[in-house]
Amino acid sequence: MTLSASTFPAKTNPLPSWSESPTREAILDFIRAVTDEGGEDFVPPSERIATFDNDGTLWVEYPIYTQFLFTIERLKALAPQHPEWQIMQPFKAVLEDDREKVGASGVKGLMDLTAVASAGMTADKFAREVRSWLTTTRHPRFDRVYARCIYLPQLELLDTLRAHAFKTFIVSGGDQAFMCPVTAEIYGIPPEQVIGSTVVSELKLKDGQADLVRKPGINSIVDRETKPVSILQHIGQRPILAFGNSDADREMIEYTMAGKGRRLGLFLHHTDAVREYAYDREGQVGVLARVLDDAAANDWVIVDMKNDWSQVFPDT
Amino acid sequence: MTLSASTFPAKTNPLPSWSESPTREAILDFIRAVTDEGGEDFVPPSERIATFDNDGTLWVEYPIYTQFLFTIERLKALAPQHPEWQIMQPFKAVLEDDREKVGASGVKGLMDLTAVASAGMTADKFAREVRSWLTTTRHPRFDRVYARCIYLPQLELLDTLRAHAFKTFIVSGGDQAFMCPVTAEIYGIPPEQVIGSTVVSELKLKDGQADLVRKPGINSIVDRETKPVSILQHIGQRPILAFGNSDADREMIEYTMAGKGRRLGLFLHHTDAVREYAYDREGQVGVLARVLDDAAANDWVIVDMKNDWSQVFPDT
Repeated sequence: MTLSASTFPAKTNPLPSWSESPTREAILDFIRAVTDEGGEDFVPPSERIATFDNDGTLWVEYPIYTQFLFTIERLKALAPQHPEWQIMQPFKAVLEDDREKVGASGVKGLMDLTAVASAGMTADKFAREVRSWLTTTRHPRFDRVYARCIYLPQLELLDTLRAHAFKTFIVSGGDQAFMCPVTAEIYGIPPEQVIGSTVVSELKLKDGQADLVRKPGINSIVDRETKPVSILQHIGQRPILAFGNSDADREMIEYTMAGKGRRLGLFLHHTDAVREYAYDREGQVGVLARVLDDAAANDWVIVDMKNDWSQVFPDT
Repeated sequence: MTLSASTFPAKTNPLPSWSESPTREAILDFIRAVTDEGGEDFVPPSERIATFDNDGTLWVEYPIYTQFLFTIERLKALAPQHPEWQIMQPFKAVLEDDREKVGASGVKGLMDLTAVASAGMTADKFAREVRSWLTTTRHPRFDRVYARCIYLPQLELLDTLRAHAFKTFIVSGGDQAFMCPVTAEIYGIPPEQVIGSTVVSELKLKDGQADLVRKPGINSIVDRETKPVSILQHIGQRPILAFGNSDADREMIEYTMAGKGRRLGLFLHHTDAVREYAYDREGQVGVLARVLDDAAANDWVIVDMKNDWSQVFPDT
């Protein structure tokens, strides 16, 4: 591989919060290779597509998805109007704060509850409420709002990729409408580059107004084998780099790696109980098991949070 | 409104194939207003979203959608393996070249037939076949391939919008996969900015390969009231400019115009039987009737092909 001196100017450090390690080198080597115009691995800018999972890859997901916390709060506020929820699952578990039971319902359960919790709201109002909640509700442990429970090394990676003409996308099981209101500000990813699960929406025309109203049903779930399908339907081409953190991202990485030419597939391994959390094979959130078993045979890069990241969160 | 001298440098003519007319002025006024940093109508670049219908707005749709022609050709090639099609509608009409009956089935019928005609193909192979067909099959009347049966004034408008930091999107009832393989080249619109109807696709993993395979079913139809819904699900924000050509684009324009601040909604009226076609209230393709009745009351701009465009197609 040709090392292009100009790709990373000597004076700058493109990934300052990534420790010097083979992981960091693998990332920088990949970027050098696909952007080296004379090299055999060169990829034209229009095909430099990078996709990132969100929960557990760009922001904290453990021990329960942030979207669940928002949704639980809304459902509790709505509960007085729904006495039946006192005896009806999964609402009963929500009202009893049984987070283990709520969390166990996974992406589908999350989307079901969020759809019910926001039914009847216009898309614009939902976006305002999400934005307000994410930027004012503080994480009990990290002393920062949820919109800042994001990983500094990933922000640096996103910036470095974009500086090399990559287009960066989110591909997440979370509600697209729960991410879009903040992704441009917190990640530099505009709303049209955010792919997530969606609820049913309906156009309501009245008195010169035209609003999209959220309905209590799911339109699409973006998870496991539907991540590649959603990438096709939204991006229309195969990524050359994909980054996930759980077995549910495996198909996205397989789809990415199976394309022709040089590719990079990465998984974040949460190994840092001191600065964030340590979890992998057990539990209900972000299970990383089959991927760990098969990573070496597939040339997937496992990013070890504890050893590969010198800093986890932005300073503020 | 402040006329910013620098917006359109005196030496350049941003829309050379648009005749001097109130229509052209309305477009240029709008662009000036939303890009004038000191002005009251200023819109920041991140919100400069423009959506265009495709069939009949960017490329020729009359007397039958281009995608129907491609699909009919494929179905005829497959017919020997499907003797039942000889007696089964809508296949019988296809094989008998009854284009009026085929065309009458609309966007839903079009997608049904295309899904059947391409079932079992990988997304990559379908993209190659579409690209090859569009760039080699000649239109019988216009002496050019279908990929060049596109409107020069619209190419100029797309370029001008992008030069003013707009992001340009296609929002079409046609199969997204029938447009994506050529839109970057012919319109300067990358595949991730193309929203269209989609067939069901399935991930097939085998021997280190990972392909998306088209199935004989419809995943989504983008038409009428689902155009705004698809815009929300794909772009995540409301356009400030939308351009269509039929009653099926009405909801997209209403959704666009109902946003806060300055907006522009346009419909192309096919009035030019000599250089292209003249059609509006009658027929099965591109019906423009209710929109013509209501345009004035809603401040929609009707673009008159015959009078507003000095040239219709690019020279080659």
